[in-house]
Amino acid sequence: MKYLLVLLFAGLTTVAQTKKEQLHLMPWPQNVVLNDGNFTLDKNFKVNITGNPNSRIFGGVTRFLRRLDGRTGMFFEQGFIAKLNEFPSASLQINCDKNGKIGLYEDESYHLEIKQNKIILNATSDLGALHGLETLLQLLQNNATSFYFPNSQISDFPRFTWRGLMIDVARHFQPVDVIKRNIDGLAAMKMNVFHWHLVDDQGWRIETPKHPKLIELASDGMYYTQEEIKNIVKYADERGILVVPEIDVPGHGSAILTAYPEIGSKVMTLTGGTSEKNIQGTAIVTYGIERNAGIFSPTLDPSNPKTYQLLSELFDEVCPLFPGSYFHIGGDENEGKDWDANPKIQEFKKKHNLATNHELQTYFTMQLVPMLKKHGKQLMGWEEIMTKDMTKDAIIHSWKGANEGVPTGQSLINAVKNGYKTVLSNGYYIDLVLGVDSHYLNDPMPAGVSLSTEEKARILGGEATMWTELVTPTTIDSRLWPRTAAIAERLWSAEEIKDVANMRKRLETVSFRLEELGLTHIRNKAVILRNILNNQNIQALDEFSNVCEPLKGYSRNKDGTEYQMYSPFTLFADACTPDAKDVIPFDEAVNQYLATQSPENKAKVAAFLSKWVVVNKELIQLSHNAPLLQPILPLAEKLSNASEQLLLFLDNKQTLKITDLKNLIEACNTKDHADIELAVYTSLKKLIEKV
Amino acid sequence: MKYLLVLLFAGLTTVAQTKKEQLHLMPWPQNVVLNDGNFTLDKNFKVNITGNPNSRIFGGVTRFLRRLDGRTGMFFEQGFIAKLNEFPSASLQINCDKNGKIGLYEDESYHLEIKQNKIILNATSDLGALHGLETLLQLLQNNATSFYFPNSQISDFPRFTWRGLMIDVARHFQPVDVIKRNIDGLAAMKMNVFHWHLVDDQGWRIETPKHPKLIELASDGMYYTQEEIKNIVKYADERGILVVPEIDVPGHGSAILTAYPEIGSKVMTLTGGTSEKNIQGTAIVTYGIERNAGIFSPTLDPSNPKTYQLLSELFDEVCPLFPGSYFHIGGDENEGKDWDANPKIQEFKKKHNLATNHELQTYFTMQLVPMLKKHGKQLMGWEEIMTKDMTKDAIIHSWKGANEGVPTGQSLINAVKNGYKTVLSNGYYIDLVLGVDSHYLNDPMPAGVSLSTEEKARILGGEATMWTELVTPTTIDSRLWPRTAAIAERLWSAEEIKDVANMRKRLETVSFRLEELGLTHIRNKAVILRNILNNQNIQALDEFSNVCEPLKGYSRNKDGTEYQMYSPFTLFADACTPDAKDVIPFDEAVNQYLATQSPENKAKVAAFLSKWVVVNKELIQLSHNAPLLQPILPLAEKLSNASEQLLLFLDNKQTLKITDLKNLIEACNTKDHADIELAVYTSLKKLIEKV
Repeated sequence: MKYLLVLLFAGLTTVAQTKKEQLHLMPWPQNVVLNDGNFTLDKNFKVNITGNPNSRIFGGVTRFLRRLDGRTGMFFEQGFIAKLNEFPSASLQINCDKNGKIGLYEDESYHLEIKQNKIILNATSDLGALHGLETLLQLLQNNATSFYFPNSQISDFPRFTWRGLMIDVARHFQPVDVIKRNIDGLAAMKMNVFHWHLVDDQGWRIETPKHPKLIELASDGMYYTQEEIKNIVKYADERGILVVPEIDVPGHGSAILTAYPEIGSKVMTLTGGTSEKNIQGTAIVTYGIERNAGIFSPTLDPSNPKTYQLLSELFDEVCPLFPGSYFHIGGDENEGKDWDANPKIQEFKKKHNLATNHELQTYFTMQLVPMLKKHGKQLMGWEEIMTKDMTKDAIIHSWKGANEGVPTGQSLINAVKNGYKTVLSNGYYIDLVLGVDSHYLNDPMPAGVSLSTEEKARILGGEATMWTELVTPTTIDSRLWPRTAAIAERLWSAEEIKDVANMRKRLETVSFRLEELGLTHIRNKAVILRNILNNQNIQALDEFSNVCEPLKGYSRNKDGTEYQMYSPFTLFADACTPDAKDVIPFDEAVNQYLATQSPENKAKVAAFLSKWVVVNKELIQLSHNAPLLQPILPLAEKLSNASEQLLLFLDNKQTLKITDLKNLIEACNTKDHADIELAVYTSLKKLIEKV
Repeated sequence: MKYLLVLLFAGLTTVAQTKKEQLHLMPWPQNVVLNDGNFTLDKNFKVNITGNPNSRIFGGVTRFLRRLDGRTGMFFEQGFIAKLNEFPSASLQINCDKNGKIGLYEDESYHLEIKQNKIILNATSDLGALHGLETLLQLLQNNATSFYFPNSQISDFPRFTWRGLMIDVARHFQPVDVIKRNIDGLAAMKMNVFHWHLVDDQGWRIETPKHPKLIELASDGMYYTQEEIKNIVKYADERGILVVPEIDVPGHGSAILTAYPEIGSKVMTLTGGTSEKNIQGTAIVTYGIERNAGIFSPTLDPSNPKTYQLLSELFDEVCPLFPGSYFHIGGDENEGKDWDANPKIQEFKKKHNLATNHELQTYFTMQLVPMLKKHGKQLMGWEEIMTKDMTKDAIIHSWKGANEGVPTGQSLINAVKNGYKTVLSNGYYIDLVLGVDSHYLNDPMPAGVSLSTEEKARILGGEATMWTELVTPTTIDSRLWPRTAAIAERLWSAEEIKDVANMRKRLETVSFRLEELGLTHIRNKAVILRNILNNQNIQALDEFSNVCEPLKGYSRNKDGTEYQMYSPFTLFADACTPDAKDVIPFDEAVNQYLATQSPENKAKVAAFLSKWVVVNKELIQLSHNAPLLQPILPLAEKLSNASEQLLLFLDNKQTLKITDLKNLIEACNTKDHADIELAVYTSLKKLIEKV
C-alpha cells in the first residue's frame, strides 16, 4: 500500500516514447507496430476472459498477474481468476475462439493491441492467448517511477510447429521441481514440446508397477512415480506444452538389461561347468547400471520374442501416462557389437533376410509400431531408425553432423525427400556448451537445398537437447538458459531475424526475466563459487569466471571416464558458462583500440587487463584457505602475466621481446587447468597480431 | 582427476593443530575432546556399515559421501552404498546396534572417534549415526591444499526429545521441494520433528478423495496429493524426522467451511423471503477462502453432529498417511464470536452444563480424542485446548507470551504441573523476524520455577514456528535459516551452552553450509534485488540491505490487511533479513571507538559512514530506472545525511548544532519507509550520546 501511494504520486511524470530497440522481445514476433502513447499500470489493472478457451487459460492469467505484480509491486486487487467474463470492464480483454489442443498444427497465433486505456488480446485458441501474455510481459517498460506498456499492435504466429527441448533424466536424474521450472521456461519462450529422455544406460526413471524390477534394480531409487509423471504432463498441458516421452531401445540398454538380463544380446562362452543345451555352450551375461558416459554395447536382443513381450507390456504401462500422439523410442548409437557376436542373432538375421544390423534394427523397430499404435501413438526415433523399410508414419529425429562425420543435417534432407516428417536437433546440442550464436544461426530449413513445398512442410521444427553427463540439478539451468531462448527464437520467428548482436542484447534481459520462474541459471553460480572459496568473498573468482568457459564438446570428460555419474560437479568449470560475460565486451574494446588508438580506447582495454592482474593477486590470497581454488591458479597467473606485459606494451614500455610476449599470450591458450579455457585468448592475441 | 593430482602433490604440506574455536559445530555436542593429528581425506576414503541399522542408513551415508565429495572435489571412488559390510577395510566404520524408531524417546546418541587413519562412528540406532555423520561433515577442516578431520572424540546426545519446526502451508502454499529441502535442513541440525500446519483459514492443503470439495473449493488448486504426502513422510523418515500433521479446528475454519458451510457456527437472521422452518428464522451463511492475515470468526459448530461426522471421516482419510503417533488439532484463537451469536449453540452449552466457550471447546476437542485413538494417534493442540476436563494424554503446545498479554511460558508451567506433556513454541516464533539471540536464549526449561523431576520430564522440548502470512516459496528459507539452527542448538545442546557471540560465529559457517542442501536463504536475496533494480548492478542495494531489517512482529502487515495472500512479496523488505550483516560489526566498531578514540578505531567507524554516503548516491542513480527503488530512497537519504554529519563530527569539523545532528540521527529511527527499519540506528545514536 505504502509503495503504491508513492508510485501514484510519482507516476505523473512524463513517459518517453518507446523505441523498437527498447523492446527486448524473444522470440521476436512476426509483426510489431509501435504507436504513440502508453498504457500505464496501476493497482486497478484487471483481466477479463471471454470466448471458448480451455480452462488452462485461468491458471495462465493468474500466473501472468502474479508475475506482473511481482515485477511492479502494484498490489493488484485481482487475485485468482476462475470464470469467464468475470470483469467485463477490465482493462485487459482476452478473447479466445476455441479450446486449444495440445500437439502439432494447432493454431497458436495471437493479436495483441495496446491502447492508452485498453489492451486487447485476441487469439484463435487459448494456446495463442498464453503466448500473447508472454509477449505482453516482455513489453513491460518503466521510467523512474512508473511501469507501462507502449501502445502497439502485434500479430504473431510460429514459423515451425515443433519447438522443443529434450532433457535427459537418465545420466543425472532431475527432480520434479527442476522439470517444472524448465517447463515454465519453455512456455515463456513460446516453445511447445518437452521431450523427456526417461531411459538410458545410466537409469530407468519411470515407475512401472507391473515391472517393479526396473526401478528396484535400475534406478538407484531415483525415478518418477506414475502420479508424478501425470502431474508433470498436466503441468505442461496447462502451459501449452506437449510431453513426448522417450524409452531408448534397442541400444543404450544397460538399465533395462540390469533388470531383465534375459533379453540382452551379449553372449559369454562357458569355459567350464555344465552349459544348458538350448543355449549351445553360451550363457547370458548380467548387466549393471552404467556409471560412466559414452556409448556402450548393452543392447536388447531383437531375435528374442521375450524382448517384444516385455516392451509391449511396458508400452501398455507407460503410454497411458502420456496423452500426446508421439512416442520416442530412441534407436540411436546401437553399435551392434553384441549382435555380431551372438550366433543366435546372426542366424535370425539370415532367416529373415536381414543383410545388415541396420536392417535388423529396422525389423526390431517395426515391431514397436503396432504396440504404440494400439495406444494411438506415432513412433519417433533418432535418425538411425530410418531405412528403406521404415514406416512413413515415423518421425525422424535428425541429430548427427560434423562431429559424427556426416554432413550437417543430411539425415533431415534424406528424411523429407523420402517422405518422412522430421525434427532437427543437430546444431541444437546445448550440452556441448558452445556459444549461443552457433545455435541461433542453425536453421531447420537447410540452406542451398531445393525442396518442394511438401518436403518443406515435413520439416516440423527443431529441438534443443540437454544430455546430462556433466549436469546436476544445481547446474542444469545454467546449461539450458539463456541459450535455449535463442533456439526458441530460431524456431518461432521469421527466418530473416538473425542479427546476432541484436539477439544478444535482448537475450540479456530475457535471461534476467527467466529468474522469476524459479530458474537458477544466474543465482546458483554464487553458490558454487562460495563452496570453492570456503565462504570467502567471491568477487575475484566471479570476475575470473567472466572470462572462463567450461571445456567445450565432450572434451571435459575425456573418454567419458573422468566423471562418473556421482562425481562432484561443484567445481569451477561447473560455475562457468558458455558466452562468458566479459568476452565480447573485451573483444569490442580490443577492436575499437585497434581501429583507433585513442587514450580512451586504450584505457578501456587497459581496464580489463588491470582487473585481471588484480584478480590473480586476490585469488592467490583466497587460495590459502581454499584447496578447490588451487587447480585454477595456474590459468589466472597466465592471464595475469600476459596482462601485465600487455599493459606495458600498450604504454610502449615493454622490456620483453615480442616473441616472449607472444609466448605469454600463447600460454593462455590451454585446456590443461581445471577443465576450463580462457575465452579471451583470441582477443588478447589480436592486440599483438600486427606487431 | 586433474584436480586430485594437484591436491595429492600439494597435500604434503604440514597441517596446523586444530583448536576448538575452529570447530563450527552446531548444535554443539555434549562432549568434545580434540587430540593431536588429523585424518586427511583422499579419493580412497570409503565407508563401511555394520550392525543392525534401519535401511535408511544407506541413503544417509550415500548423501553424506556426495556432500563431502561436493565440498572437497575428491572424486571418491565409492558411489552408492546399499549393503552391510560392503567395505570391511573402509576408513570410516559405522556401527549401529539397532533399527531406529522414528518418534520420541528413541536413543539418538552417537560416539565419534577420529584417528590418523580411521574414523569410528558408533551409535545405538541409525538415527544416532545420521547425527554423527552431520557432526563429521561439520568437523571438516582445510588448509591451502588439503581437507582433513581433526583427531577427536565426540560423545553426543540430545537434551530434549522434541526438536521441531512447524511450517504453515495454508497462508502461503509451499511446494514439495520447499518442504523437502527444509527437512534436509532440519536433519543437518539434528532436529527430529516436522510439524506440518496443513489447514487454516487461507486453505485446505490435503487431498482427501472422499471429500473432494475441500480441495476443489478451498485450496485454489494448491494442495498436496496423498502420494506427495506419503512421499514427504518417507523422505522425513529417511532423515530421522517425525512428521506431525495439523488440522486446525474448531477456529481458523474458513477453508473447511468454504467447502462445508453447513457445519459453520455463524447464523444470519433472514429479513425477508421464506426461511426454512427447522432453522427457526435463521439461515446458514456461506464462507470463502480468507485472503487476509489475522484472526477470523469462522468456526466449526460444536453442537452439530455433522461436524463430528465430517471430522471423523477426515481423520479416517488423513491419519493413515502419517505413521507417527501424534496428530495436532490446532485449537487456537477461537474467539467464540459466532458461538455467542448462535442461539442453538447457546442452548447446547446450557444443556451440557458448559459454562464458558472454553469449556465448550474442550467438549469439542474431547470428541476428537477417540477419532484419533482409533488410528493410534495421541492428540496435540495449542495451549487453548488445556482445561480441567482435557485428557492428560493430550500434548499441550505452549505458544502465548508477552505479545498475547500473558506471562511467557506460563501455559508450559501450568501444563506440566497439571500432568500434561508439553512443547514450547513461545519465544521460537521465527516469523516475527526478530534477532537470533532472542530465540537462542529462550530455554524450554523455565527459569526460576521449581519443578519436580517428573514435571521436568514432561517438557518434551520446543518447536520453531514459521507462519507464512508474509512468506513465499522464494523467501521462506531466509526466514527459516540460519536462525532455526540456533534454536536447534538450544534444544539439543547442554543448557550452559549459551554464549551468543560464539554462537553467531559458528552460525555464519553453518548458514553457508546449509546452502549445499539446496536451501535458498542466501542465493535468493540477489534475485529479489535484481528484480527491484531492473537488472542493474545490485552491489549498492545489497550494501544497504546489510543495515536494513524487515519490520518486526506483525507490524509490517498492519491489521493483516496490507498484504493479501496474493500480494507481491518481491520487495526490499522481502530481501532484507533479521540480523542484518553490518549491524554487529558496526556496533563493535562504535564501541571500540568510544572506548579508545584512536585513529584506527575512528577509521573503522568512518569506513562504514562513508560507505553509506556512497550507497545513497548510487541508489539515487539506480532509481532512474527502478520504480521499486523509490520507496527505499528516503531512508537511504536519512542514513546518508546522518553519516555525512557524523563524519564531520568525528573529525571535529561539524558545523551543525548538536541538536540538529541528533535530529538527523533520530530521523533514522523510523518505520515509515518500505516496511523496513534501519538496524544501525542505536549504534549511530551511541556515537553522540555523551555529547
